[in-house]
This record gives sequence, C-alpha cells and structure tokens, in this order.
Amino acid sequence: MIRSVQWHSKRLQHSLAPNISQLLKKPPALDSALTVNGYVKSVRSLKKVSFVDLFDGSTHESLMCVLSPADAEQLKTGQSVRFQGTWKQSKGKEQPFELKTQAVEVLGDVPANYPLQKKLHSLKFLRTIPTLRWKTGYLSSILRFRSQVDGRLHRFFEDEGFFKTNPPIITGSDCEGAGELFQVESKSKESQPFFGKSAYLTVSTQLHLEVLCCALGKVWSLSPTFRAEESDTNRHLSEFWMLEGEIAFIDNVQQLTKFTERMIKSIVKDLVEDNNGIATNLLKSQRSEEGMEQAIGKLQQRWSSLYTEEWPCITYSEALDILKRSGVKFQIPVRYEDGLASEHEKWLAGEHFHSPVFVVDYPKEMKPFYMKLNDDNSTVACFDLLVPEVGEIIGGSVREHSLEKLHTEIEQRGMNKQDLQWYLSTRENATVPHGGFGLGFERLLCYLSGVSNVRDVVPFPRAHDECEA
Amino acid sequence: MIRSVQWHSKRLQHSLAPNISQLLKKPPALDSALTVNGYVKSVRSLKKVSFVDLFDGSTHESLMCVLSPADAEQLKTGQSVRFQGTWKQSKGKEQPFELKTQAVEVLGDVPANYPLQKKLHSLKFLRTIPTLRWKTGYLSSILRFRSQVDGRLHRFFEDEGFFKTNPPIITGSDCEGAGELFQVESKSKESQPFFGKSAYLTVSTQLHLEVLCCALGKVWSLSPTFRAEESDTNRHLSEFWMLEGEIAFIDNVQQLTKFTERMIKSIVKDLVEDNNGIATNLLKSQRSEEGMEQAIGKLQQRWSSLYTEEWPCITYSEALDILKRSGVKFQIPVRYEDGLASEHEKWLAGEHFHSPVFVVDYPKEMKPFYMKLNDDNSTVACFDLLVPEVGEIIGGSVREHSLEKLHTEIEQRGMNKQDLQWYLSTRENATVPHGGFGLGFERLLCYLSGVSNVRDVVPFPRAHDECEA
Repeated sequence: MIRSVQWHSKRLQHSLAPNISQLLKKPPALDSALTVNGYVKSVRSLKKVSFVDLFDGSTHESLMCVLSPADAEQLKTGQSVRFQGTWKQSKGKEQPFELKTQAVEVLGDVPANYPLQKKLHSLKFLRTIPTLRWKTGYLSSILRFRSQVDGRLHRFFEDEGFFKTNPPIITGSDCEGAGELFQVESKSKESQPFFGKSAYLTVSTQLHLEVLCCALGKVWSLSPTFRAEESDTNRHLSEFWMLEGEIAFIDNVQQLTKFTERMIKSIVKDLVEDNNGIATNLLKSQRSEEGMEQAIGKLQQRWSSLYTEEWPCITYSEALDILKRSGVKFQIPVRYEDGLASEHEKWLAGEHFHSPVFVVDYPKEMKPFYMKLNDDNSTVACFDLLVPEVGEIIGGSVREHSLEKLHTEIEQRGMNKQDLQWYLSTRENATVPHGGFGLGFERLLCYLSGVSNVRDVVPFPRAHDECEA
Repeated sequence: MIRSVQWHSKRLQHSLAPNISQLLKKPPALDSALTVNGYVKSVRSLKKVSFVDLFDGSTHESLMCVLSPADAEQLKTGQSVRFQGTWKQSKGKEQPFELKTQAVEVLGDVPANYPLQKKLHSLKFLRTIPTLRWKTGYLSSILRFRSQVDGRLHRFFEDEGFFKTNPPIITGSDCEGAGELFQVESKSKESQPFFGKSAYLTVSTQLHLEVLCCALGKVWSLSPTFRAEESDTNRHLSEFWMLEGEIAFIDNVQQLTKFTERMIKSIVKDLVEDNNGIATNLLKSQRSEEGMEQAIGKLQQRWSSLYTEEWPCITYSEALDILKRSGVKFQIPVRYEDGLASEHEKWLAGEHFHSPVFVVDYPKEMKPFYMKLNDDNSTVACFDLLVPEVGEIIGGSVREHSLEKLHTEIEQRGMNKQDLQWYLSTRENATVPHGGFGLGFERLLCYLSGVSNVRDVVPFPRAHDECEA
C-alpha cells in the first residue's frame, strides 16, 4: 500500500528539503506538513501502529516516524525513502519530536543480501564494501568529524592572521630526497615529457610555503601529499592530507611549539566543551564492541588530559637519557645515533609523560638540509610532537635562512644545487628568519577520534596495491 | 649606523610578533614599545628625519616608520628589516599611527639588480620571477583574496548543512573519458604497477562525491584536479582547484541553479558590503596602468550587478534561438548540434543578458553518461552557468539514479561497465535521486577579482611545458 507522494507546488521544489540535522536543530512548528528523505534504519510494527527509525547521515540522530502497519509492510532496512507527514511532539522519551507519516514512497530498494543490517560489522569487513561503509553510524560520524575539524582549523588560522594557500601538487624536482616519489606523465605522452622535464607528486608543500611566507607573512595549506612507500601498516597511506604552516620572522623553535600546541588545543577545546555538537557526534556513534561507556570514557579522558595540561618540551638528549634510565627493555635498543623508534616515541608520550610531548634539537644528521643549525653546531632547531599511542604527529623547524650556510649544507650532502635554485632565491633576495611545521591530518583525526586504522578516516584510501573504488 | 635590536625577555620571544595587519586592526596603546618586521617599500629622507614605508604582505596597507637619517642611510627598497620603536599617533593624514623607530636591523639584503623596485611591472614580467612576484602589492592582494574566498565558502557550506570531504586524487579508472589524463606510477617501479593496476590523477571528484552524498546527504570538496591538455591559453591549467558539491534527494535542476546562485552571491555580498575588508584589499591594490579609478569602478560595477539582480535561466534551445535571431556575425556559426562556443557563451552573458545566465537542458549527446534524461528523451537535466567575459564557470546536473537507465547509457556509449562497477553500486543499493555541480575555483577568482590570466591567481601554475619553481 505504498502511495506516491504528491508535491505541493513548483515553487517549493526549487529549494532543498531540510535534512534531519536541520529539522532537529531548528524544529518546524508543530503540526507542520513536511517531507523527509532518508534511509530506513529499522522497522518495528505493533498491531495498530508501526515505527520507522529514519537516518540520512546529516547527524548521528535518527528521526522517529510513526506510520500505519500497512504502509510499513513493504519497508526494510537500508531502503531510501521519502515520507510525507506531520511534525508532532513525541510521546516517547528518546526524542522530542516525531513524524506522523501519511504518505510513503520507496525511492531505492536494496537487494536481499544488502550487507548493512542492524548489527555490528567489523571495521575490516566494512573496508571490503568501500561505497557502502560510510552509511554506518560510526564511520559517518568520523567523516562528519573530519569536516568539523577542517572548518575549525580554518577559523583558527583566520583568527591568527594566516592566509590559506594552495602550493602545487605536481613538482619539478625531487628536492627533499625524502621517501619514495610518484612520477607523473601524460597518458598519451609522445616523445617529449609533458612538463618539459620529469615531474612528481609532492611529498610536502613546505618549500613552496616558504616562498609564500616570505610574501604574505603567515601561511598555511591543507593539501594532498604522496609517498610511494610499500609499507603496509595501519598508519601509512600513499595519498594523505598534510596540514603545513610557515611563519615569517620567527627565531626559535619555542615559537613553533607554542603555536602548534595552541592550534591543537583549539580543536580539543571544542571537543571538551562540545561546541556545535562536535563531541556528541563522536560519542553517540561509538561502537559498542568493547562497551559503550568504556569507549566514551576513554575518549573523554584523552581530550581532557590534552586540554588541561601544558605539554612538556624536552631536548633529544634528554629524551635519550630518560629512555636509557627507564630500565625498560625496548625491542629496538636506545642509541643516540639511531634516533627515536616508534616504540620509543609511544613510550615517552604514553608511559612516561602521559601527555603529548615536544622533543627538540635533534642531531642534524637525522634531519633534512633546510633546518637551522643550533649554536652547538651539531643539533638543529627542530621539534617533533609525540602523542600517546600514535607517536609522532607533527614535525617542524626553524629554517636556515643564511644562503651561505645552506650552500654548505647542500654541498656536504651532495645534493643538486641547480634543482634548488628557485628555493635558494628566497635567501638571495631579502631573506627572513622563518620556520614552520607539518601535521599528518589523518593521524591527528585518528588520535582525536580514537580510530586506530588511518583507512577509517579517509573516504577512499590509497596505498600499495590498494586503489579500489 | 645600524644597531642590533636587543630582545626583551625569553618569555616574549615565544609568542609571535603582531604583523602590520594586526597592529592596524587592534592598535597597541600609544607609546608602547614595539618590534615590527617587514620589507622596505620606500625610503624618503629629509634633513632631520627619514620615513620608511614598511610592508609585510599581511595587508594592502604599509606602516609608516619615522627614523633618523643616519639609520635610514643604509636601507633600500626590498630589504627585510626588524625595527624597534614606539607606537605613536601619526602627524600625517594617510594613516592614524606610525612607528617612531629607535633601532634598526637589516635581516636580509637585496642584490643590486633586485627587480621589485617601486614601479609598475607588467604581469607578464612578474611571471618570470615566480618566487618574488607574490611580494608585489597587486599579486599579494590576489592571494589574500583567494584565502578569504576559501574561508567564506567554508562558512557558507557549514551554514547550509554540508560536510567537507576529501575524495581521492589518485583514481583507478578513466571513468569519465573526459579530457586527457595524467598517469601516476612509482618512480622506482619494478615489474608490477604500484597500485596493482594503472592509476591516474583525478579530472573530477564527482563520482566519488556521489558515493559520499548517499552517505552524508550534502557534501562538497575543494580539490586539485588535473588535465593533460596542451592548450596554451590564459584560462587553462594542467593543475587547478575545483569546487564540487553533491546533494542527495533533489529532483530537478532548478534546485541546483538556485543553490549555486546563492553560493556565489554569499561571496559577492561580502564584496559589496566589504565585510572583513575583502573588497578594500582588492580595490586599494588595483594596478594603476589603466587608471586607478577606472579599475576600481569596473570591479565595483561587476559586483553590484552580480548581487542585485536575479540571474536569468534559459534552456539550450532558447539560447540557440537568441543567438540565431541576434544578427551577430559570430566566427563560429550557431548550430544546434555543435553546442555553444566560448564566444557564444560570452556574448549571451556579456552582451545579451549583461548578467550571469543559467543555460539548462542541453542535448544528451553533448553531455556525459551520468546525467539524468529529461522526459523529452533527448535533453538532460543539466545546467551551465555562463558569466560575462569569462564564459562557463559552473557545470552541473541531476544524476541518473536508475540503474537500468545508466546501464543502457553506458552500453550505448560503448563504455567499460566493469570499471564503473563501484560507482554503479550506489544505484544497486538504495539509490537516491541526487545532483551536483563543479566550479572552476580559479575561474571564479579571476572573475570576481578582475584578473584576466588564471596564472595570476595560482601561486605556482602548472601547464604544458610549465613547471618552474
């Protein structure tokens, strides 16, 4: 007994129908006639009345719809539907409003083996249905969170007087020598390379950001970056988004650590205060495998400890001392010349400090050519931010702004000066002291939302042998 | 007589010094001691006093600094400097404050042939110095504008209940068959392709956005997209940013045209009302080649006509009728089966309507496979937005959501159904009526800021044989 919905007027059709989030945030007047679109989450039928939970991905909440058992008969979980009805005060306790439904239209049916039934699927299984998995309550909350954090960062940088910029994705030279590159060429390449030379996907926008910070002062970017690494872990992707900032006229690494602490805390503040429902979105969508309360408590604990305390800052040597004196048997031995392994980083932040911790002044041999040498002539003015469970999520440094010192460094490392000529021009023409940082956007999202596999915070992950959908 | 600046305290050093924009927006108390960084725009020396105009890219305004002729002696245009002084009420009329400078430090010198002297350089010349050109007043105002528009769009989409998403840049199939593709492969490729198959840079995020709109309802992206086209014009790039939106549960093209009109007008409103100085930034930085007043008047005229009127909407057939009846001798003849040439588009918007104009319902043969067929069985429910001088800047459509009709279309066009299987899964599992659009971000910026070459709104343009810096 599915009746087709009759539309009101030509005029109405030209606006967008409010979604469930908008209806619940700004409820229409009681008894208003209304059209609501969404997907059937569940159907419960009593003798004289049926209830449909309707969701549409705009919020973690679903809308309770009351309809006749005859109308409900042909509905099933997953279908897309359009309901016409009247907006009513709800008699139940779960939510204040409900839709008394008069007309029902099934827009799209689901096959008999439709996988998203009302039960808990493993995240691993959900990754095998890449075009459907974002319809689950948990994963859709992660994408909504991603969007909220993106928006929050825009406001933060605006307030701090930064300009958002778009450095290039395709770059002409393998300047940094960092990690594995992807090469780009026209599919229909004839004899000459399309760009007149070899071209690659960027591994970091930093060098170009440095140019732009010399022009605009404080700049940032949120840009896709690429690594052709074959490592198959739950925290590496070949295509990931990097947030990078570059600031002119700074002299020391503490200006950068203070700034990045403020940046992350601006997001955490929203989570702690639940501004715009950003925390509720995550908390109400937690998966109940390990127990809802436990999952919620763990996240809230993480946010509040991030927020309330000032993050410690230690030097690389101090970090080594702490690790050596700890008495812990690490799988990888702690040695000054080997740097910090991921297990050392996680132990420092997670077990020792129970807090994010900045590590500054690494030996220069461990870091790229552009970092500013400290007065000791052996360490550089850089920092990594280590967080519990995840390890490093930000790296940054003051940049060497002396042309002479950069030349020396480039020569000592046997790098190609010609390829870097454009970059060096910033030091030849009114060089300025400056510095910046890069943040793995997906890693930050994982940490703040408690997601353990980076594939679950990216709509369509790309990695070695992984380019589905 | 250049003295080095003495720093106050360790504590102060850890915050960022306010830039000129921040100083002018929230002026410190009169007689405050202050450190200001920037570049020398000009030096004027009288007998007992010298004046330096200082700029730092944070605003179109420069800061007047008053110093002794002895301190000013070694300063020259372009140098980066750090001044220490006292914040004073200005005696001049040009701006309310000035810095009475007590100590001067040259941070970075410029070579004798430093190109950015205080004169008007052609934009063409500036493109030959890609790492320096953004320091000019005009071009830096364009990058500031780009950042402002980006931020404005974030707020607009948030207010409209959209989620920002990041569809993939690397895609596994040449689904759309639109334009020339770039292929991506690991530089150190061994025998097997890195992704297990051929991979390309995306030409549009639309197909993935469709998947995401089925999950979240209303989604948008601002993403780099790529075309390996060899056309060398002032409006084509190989790497450009596309703003795309996709909306679930819409049925007709007017819902899309109304929405995109509202979207662009939200930016134009800020320009007309000069919210946050967005218009002043552009107007005060206009180049005076053609006369400042004329340039300013032209831009203001463009904004106000965009803002005040409702944009007309005509069908493709009506567009053809108007063109045929016009009596204008076009270089390319007007024929129904040939579509609209760029000169036709510009004439319609610029000469006939003097307004942006929507053209809807194009013949289906001219459009991609995914557009929804109209009841006439020959046109599709699509639109292009044409604007004066530039031509098309937005294209969009209702998407065909019937699996059966899509199959027919794909077969008739001889496309590879296997490659599109992931996309078709959205129609197999609770398909929903939906639609969306794509906007060339650089073209919009050009139009709103009056820039005629797209290379001047992108920090580092990429095109055929063009991958400098």
